[in-house]
Amino acid sequence: MNRKETPTAVLLISCPDRRGLIAAVTDFVFRNNGNIEHSDQHVDKSLGVFFMRIEWSLEGFSIPRGDIAGEFAEVAGRFSMEWELYFSDSRPRAAIFVSKHLHCLYDLLYRYRQGWYRAEIPVIISNHPDAAAAAEFFGIDFRSFEVNPDNREAAEKEQIKVLESCGAEFIILVRYMQILSGDFVSRYRNNIINIHHSFLPAFAGARPYERAHSKGVKIVGATSHYVTAELDEGPIIEQDVARVSHRDTVEDIMRKGQDLEKVVLSRAVKWHLERRILVYGPDNAAKTVIFD
Amino acid sequence: MNRKETPTAVLLISCPDRRGLIAAVTDFVFRNNGNIEHSDQHVDKSLGVFFMRIEWSLEGFSIPRGDIAGEFAEVAGRFSMEWELYFSDSRPRAAIFVSKHLHCLYDLLYRYRQGWYRAEIPVIISNHPDAAAAAEFFGIDFRSFEVNPDNREAAEKEQIKVLESCGAEFIILVRYMQILSGDFVSRYRNNIINIHHSFLPAFAGARPYERAHSKGVKIVGATSHYVTAELDEGPIIEQDVARVSHRDTVEDIMRKGQDLEKVVLSRAVKWHLERRILVYGPDNAAKTVIFD
Amino acid sequence: MNRKETPTAVLLISCPDRRGLIAAVTDFVFRNNGNIEHSDQHVDKSLGVFFMRIEWSLEGFSIPRGDIAGEFAEVAGRFSMEWELYFSDSRPRAAIFVSKHLHCLYDLLYRYRQGWYRAEIPVIISNHPDAAAAAEFFGIDFRSFEVNPDNREAAEKEQIKVLESCGAEFIILVRYMQILSGDFVSRYRNNIINIHHSFLPAFAGARPYERAHSKGVKIVGATSHYVTAELDEGPIIEQDVARVSHRDTVEDIMRKGQDLEKVVLSRAVKWHLERRILVYGPDNAAKTVIFD
Amino acid sequence: MNRKETPTAVLLISCPDRRGLIAAVTDFVFRNNGNIEHSDQHVDKSLGVFFMRIEWSLEGFSIPRGDIAGEFAEVAGRFSMEWELYFSDSRPRAAIFVSKHLHCLYDLLYRYRQGWYRAEIPVIISNHPDAAAAAEFFGIDFRSFEVNPDNREAAEKEQIKVLESCGAEFIILVRYMQILSGDFVSRYRNNIINIHHSFLPAFAGARPYERAHSKGVKIVGATSHYVTAELDEGPIIEQDVARVSHRDTVEDIMRKGQDLEKVVLSRAVKWHLERRILVYGPDNAAKTVIFD
Repeated sequence: MNRKETPTAVLLISCPDRRGLIAAVTDFVFRNNGNIEHSDQHVDKSLGVFFMRIEWSLEGFSIPRGDIAGEFAEVAGRFSMEWELYFSDSRPRAAIFVSKHLHCLYDLLYRYRQGWYRAEIPVIISNHPDAAAAAEFFGIDFRSFEVNPDNREAAEKEQIKVLESCGAEFIILVRYMQILSGDFVSRYRNNIINIHHSFLPAFAGARPYERAHSKGVKIVGATSHYVTAELDEGPIIEQDVARVSHRDTVEDIMRKGQDLEKVVLSRAVKWHLERRILVYGPDNAAKTVIFD
Repeated sequence: MNRKETPTAVLLISCPDRRGLIAAVTDFVFRNNGNIEHSDQHVDKSLGVFFMRIEWSLEGFSIPRGDIAGEFAEVAGRFSMEWELYFSDSRPRAAIFVSKHLHCLYDLLYRYRQGWYRAEIPVIISNHPDAAAAAEFFGIDFRSFEVNPDNREAAEKEQIKVLESCGAEFIILVRYMQILSGDFVSRYRNNIINIHHSFLPAFAGARPYERAHSKGVKIVGATSHYVTAELDEGPIIEQDVARVSHRDTVEDIMRKGQDLEKVVLSRAVKWHLERRILVYGPDNAAKTVIFD
Repeated sequence: MNRKETPTAVLLISCPDRRGLIAAVTDFVFRNNGNIEHSDQHVDKSLGVFFMRIEWSLEGFSIPRGDIAGEFAEVAGRFSMEWELYFSDSRPRAAIFVSKHLHCLYDLLYRYRQGWYRAEIPVIISNHPDAAAAAEFFGIDFRSFEVNPDNREAAEKEQIKVLESCGAEFIILVRYMQILSGDFVSRYRNNIINIHHSFLPAFAGARPYERAHSKGVKIVGATSHYVTAELDEGPIIEQDVARVSHRDTVEDIMRKGQDLEKVVLSRAVKWHLERRILVYGPDNAAKTVIFD
Repeated sequence: MNRKETPTAVLLISCPDRRGLIAAVTDFVFRNNGNIEHSDQHVDKSLGVFFMRIEWSLEGFSIPRGDIAGEFAEVAGRFSMEWELYFSDSRPRAAIFVSKHLHCLYDLLYRYRQGWYRAEIPVIISNHPDAAAAAEFFGIDFRSFEVNPDNREAAEKEQIKVLESCGAEFIILVRYMQILSGDFVSRYRNNIINIHHSFLPAFAGARPYERAHSKGVKIVGATSHYVTAELDEGPIIEQDVARVSHRDTVEDIMRKGQDLEKVVLSRAVKWHLERRILVYGPDNAAKTVIFD
C-alpha cells in the first residue's frame, strides 16, 4: 500500500480447472524474472472452475510493462483463461454517491486521505446538498443532482457525463438512497459497490433496522456487495455483525449498525482496489472469491 | 446454580407501564423480609408494556412458600399484571426430541450431567434409533417412534403419553427433523425450544447450510427459538455467528455451524430454566426479553 | 439522547449490601411522583457491596431539581450510601488531548456533531500541530503545547489553566502519547478516559501492535480505561477484538486495531457521559460496573 | 477429510526467500502428473523466509509413493529447503493427556468419532481416574498414573513406554494439569498441543479465570499452542474470545471459557493433523503459519 513501494503487476484469472494451471502461471512469472509477492488460488469443485490471483514485482521483470498482456495471452489461450491485468501504481478513479447519511462518507474520506486506498476520488455525487461541507474539507469536487423516479433517466445521463469527464470507472454507493437503472448498472458491471445495513439475505430492501427490531433478532449486520439489477441481491463481498438485545431501540440498533457499515464498506473498497475480488457464477446467483 | 444454595423465588411480570411498578414489587419483597438477589426490568415504549424479573432468597422470607402467590395476587391485581411464580429448587422435567444429528445431544447431556441446568431430563424421544447409546451412557430413558406424515397424529398421541407419564412439561428439540402439529405446539406453548441452523430470518426452512453456501454469505449463524405453528418463525431467544469464506465447502460450513448450534441451544435452555425469558407481542410477531 | 426529550435525573449509588436497598430507592422516586426510565443494580458478593443506577423523568417529579440532593440525603444516610446525582440536560464540558494519530479524533468529533454525546467539547489540546485542521473544521478551539519530560510540570500547569478557563472537567485521551503526572491524574480522578491499542492486560506500555505481531497472537484488541497513576493499569471500561493471521504485517494489524480503537473509545465516552459507569475496588485493582 | 477420497500428498516447506520457489515446486508436481488440490505460501519479509504448503492428489501421479521424497530432494537441495512430506491416508497415532476437567475430552472424543480428525487415538493417559468412563464409552484404552513433583521423572518414563508401545507420536493435553519436563517436551517437539484457558499472553500460568475476574476484563479467551519448555509460552496456534461483564462470577466466566476451550483446541488438533501448521522463528519467540 505504501506508494514508495516498487510497482507490482496483478493477474486475476478464471478458467476450467485442469492440471498444470498454477505451474504454467508461476512459470510465466519466474522465467521472465519476476518475484512473486502474493499468489492465491481457489477451485470451486462443484463448478469445476479454477481461480487465481498472482501479484509480482515489476522490478527486474524482463517483459516491458506494455507487452505483458500480449505475452501472457499465449499462456491464457492454452488454458481458455478469462483474465485481467492490473498495475499497482495505476490508480483507478472512483466516484462516491451519497445521500443524507454521512457517517460512512466521513469515515471513507478519512481513510482515503490516510492512503488506505489505491485510488483517486475526484468527485462526490449526491441527490442532497448535505455532503458539500465534507467534500470541501477533503478537497473533492461536489455535484448535487435532484433525483426522483420521474427524472431518473435524465439525471443518470448527467451523472454519467460527470463520471466520464473525470475518468471515474468505479462507483462507491456510500448510503446512496436512490435506485440505479439497469442500464446504469450494466455500464459499471462489477464496478459499483453498495453498503446495505442488514445481514443479507435477511432484511433486503427498505428499513432494515426497523425490521430487525420488529423481528427481535439478537444480532444485526451490514453487508457490502456489488450492485446488480436486482436490489440487494448482488454478490456479497463482506459482512460483519454486532450483538443487540431487547433493550436496544431502533435508534440504538442504527448506531451499532453504522459502526458496522463503515468497516464493512471500507474493507470491500480496499479489496476491490487491490484487485483481490473475483466475481463468478450465474448472474442471478453470483458469488465472490476474496483472495488473500 | 449450585444446588446447595438457598432456594430463591422468581417472579416474571408483565403489565401496562405506569408509575410505581418497581417500587410496589420491590416493596412487596422487602416488607416480607426477602433479600433481592436479582432484579431486572424493561419497558417496551412503543407498546407501553412493562416487564420485570425479580429473584429473592427464601431464607428468612416471612411468607410461607405456599402462600406467596396468594399474597402477591393483591399487588398484581392493582397493576393488572400477568405473572408467573417459580422456585429455584423445583426442577422442571424436560424431554429431549432428537433425530440423527447427535452433536447437540452429546453436548447438552454433558452439560446436564455437569449441573448446568435446573432440570431433570427423564426421557429422550426420537424417530431414529441412533441416539440410544448416548441415552444409555447418560442414564436416560430412550423411546423410539417411527414418524412420517401419515402417522404423525397417532405418533404425537403416543409421545404425549410418554411426556405425561414422566411429567415432562418442557421440550428441547435437539435437531429433531419432524414437523410438530399445531395442536402439539399449542399444548406446550412457549415450552418447546428449537435450534435452527441458520441466522434467522435468513434461510428459514430446509437445508440452510446448502443455501448459505449457494448465496455466498461471509458469515453463518444459528438461532434458538420457541416453537410456534409457523415453521422457524417463533420468538428468537439467542443467535450466534461464525465467519466463512469462499474456501468453505458445505461440509466445512456445517462443521462451523454445529459448534454454533451447541452453544446457542445450550444458552437458550439454561435461560429458560432459570426463568429469564419473557415472550411478548402478537402471536405472529412475538419477541423475547432476556433478563440479566 | 434526543435533546428534545424530557430531562431525567440519574443517581449512582454504592453501599454495603443489605435488605431493602432497591425498595428504599425506588420508593423515594415513586412517592415523589417520578417515572423510572431505567433501573439497574449489581451486587459484588465477594465484597458485599451493592451498586445501583436509577434514572427517572423529572416531568411531574414533585421535588424541585435543586432540592433533590437534599431530600435524597436522608435515604442515603440510612444506608451509608456513597452517591452522585446528575441531570441529563446538564451537559458536562470535555477536553480532548491528542497527539499525531488522528483516526480516533475524526471519529469522535463526527459522533459528537451527530449528537452522540451528552457533552460540550470546547477545546482540543495537543503536543503537535497536526490536529489543528480537524479542530477548525469541527469548530473547536485548538491549543498546542510542546511537551517533553523536562517541561511536563510547567506544561501541565498551562493545560490546567486552559481546562479551568473553559470549564472542562472530563478529559478524553484520544491517542495522546504523553505520560500525565500523578498530580494531574488525581485532580481528574475517574474523569480521564484513555484508549490503549491492545487487549489489556496483554501488551501494556509502548508499541503494542509491534509486540502483538512478534508474539504471533491470532487476535488483537483495544481497551478503554480510566487513567490512574499506573500506566495502562486503570479500571477497564470496554474492550473489543479483531482476528489477525500470520499474513498480517504490523501495518495491517495497526489498521485493524485502529477500527477497534474508534469504537472502544466511543462507547466508553458515551457511557461515561450517560453516567452508566461506576468504579469500585482498591486503587491498585479497581474495576467498573457498566449499567444497562 | 472423507476417508473414501483419493489419498493426497502434502509438502510443508520453508527456506530462504528467492525467485522461482513456487514455480519450482508446482512444476515438480505438474510434470509428474499431479493435480494440485491446495497450494498456499507465505513470506515473512522481515526474516526473508518463504513458507509453502502444497497438497496434490496421488491419483495418476507418476512417481510411486515411496520414491516421492527421493525425487523431491533434488528440488529441495537446489533451494536449501527444509521440508516434510505427509500422506493424507497415513493416520498418525495420538495420545490424550487429561486430568479432572472433562469438557474438552468429551468434545474432542465426539468429534473424533464423527471423523473430524485424520488420526487414531489409541490411549488416554491421566493422573486421575475420572476420565475412565469416557474412555470406555468411546472405546479407548485408559491409563492412570499418579503423578506428583517427586515422581514426575519416573512417571514420564512409564508414560513414554505407553506412548511408544502404541505408536503415539502426537500428544493432546486436554486440560492436563501437570507440568511436563523439558526432556519430555523436547522428545515430542512441535507435537504436543495444549489448551490454555486465557487469551495469551494475558494470564499465563495458574488460575487464569480467577485473575481475569479480578482484573475486570470485559472479554476472556482461550489459546491453543504447541508446548515448549517455557510454560504457556509456546507458539500460538489459535485463539478465540467471549464477552463478559461485571455480572459474571468466576464460575460464569469459567462456563463461557470452557466453550471457547473446546473449539480452540479442536481447531488446533484438526489443523495439526491436516499438516496445515508450520512453526518458525527462534525457540523463545516462535510463531505459527496456519495454511489455508
